[in-house]
Amino acid sequence: MDLTLTPIGHIRSSIKTLDSAPKMEDEPGAVRAIVEITPEFASSLNGLKPGMALELFTWFHLSDRSVTHVHPRGDKSRPKRGVFSTRSPQRPNPIGLHRVTLVSIEGARLEVEPLEALDNTPVIDIKPVPQTDPDQR
Amino acid sequence: MDLTLTPIGHIRSSIKTLDSAPKMEDEPGAVRAIVEITPEFASSLNGLKPGMALELFTWFHLSDRSVTHVHPRGDKSRPKRGVFSTRSPQRPNPIGLHRVTLVSIEGARLEVEPLEALDNTPVIDIKPVPQTDPDQR
Repeated sequence: MDLTLTPIGHIRSSIKTLDSAPKMEDEPGAVRAIVEITPEFASSLNGLKPGMALELFTWFHLSDRSVTHVHPRGDKSRPKRGVFSTRSPQRPNPIGLHRVTLVSIEGARLEVEPLEALDNTPVIDIKPVPQTDPDQR
Repeated sequence: MDLTLTPIGHIRSSIKTLDSAPKMEDEPGAVRAIVEITPEFASSLNGLKPGMALELFTWFHLSDRSVTHVHPRGDKSRPKRGVFSTRSPQRPNPIGLHRVTLVSIEGARLEVEPLEALDNTPVIDIKPVPQTDPDQR
């Protein structure tokens, strides 16, 4: 069984190459970036407000999906581990998960930070971070 | 552009119907469940240890992907909002994200809790929850 994803938009970022991208959003080098949502999905953004904490799901389009083991953080002094015990972009389904703050929203253009994803990375989902207050869910 | 996911396994749970499933993993009704990984992906589990906090990614296979707006938590007294401002399973790419604890691991069988996903739900990724200590990443 195969499952098909439809990109809902793309990242527009000053980070243009893998070499210049940090490994995690809380590391130096993560930037303020734009999430440009495709017009057909724009109405589903209704309810998002600046200041909200979001989970941004992306597709690591440059990944090698056949990789099963990696050195954690690419550090060759550390033994290789199965990819499911790491957050490596190399994995069977190269889904990226980024926790960001929504800085501003204008139409289908979301400004978010901090984001370490590359320019042109496909976006596949956006969810609000779960609230502890059930009324806010 | 379409992106294809490959299920890496399935959920085995005592939760058999949507009516009996809680909406979130921290609500009453979430259970201890099994994640059964397909043999071809089993070696990529290497490095996972009981007690680890994991992000489990699933595919809400019963969802209606054409839905753009929902009542938050299905509560009709609350106005409809765009699906990207909710965690509704109805969304263009019905990816589920569950934060669970790994209770035990035996071969390609992971026991996790608490999980609100339905029996037979496809699993698409597993990541360790990010550590604040960079050496643990």
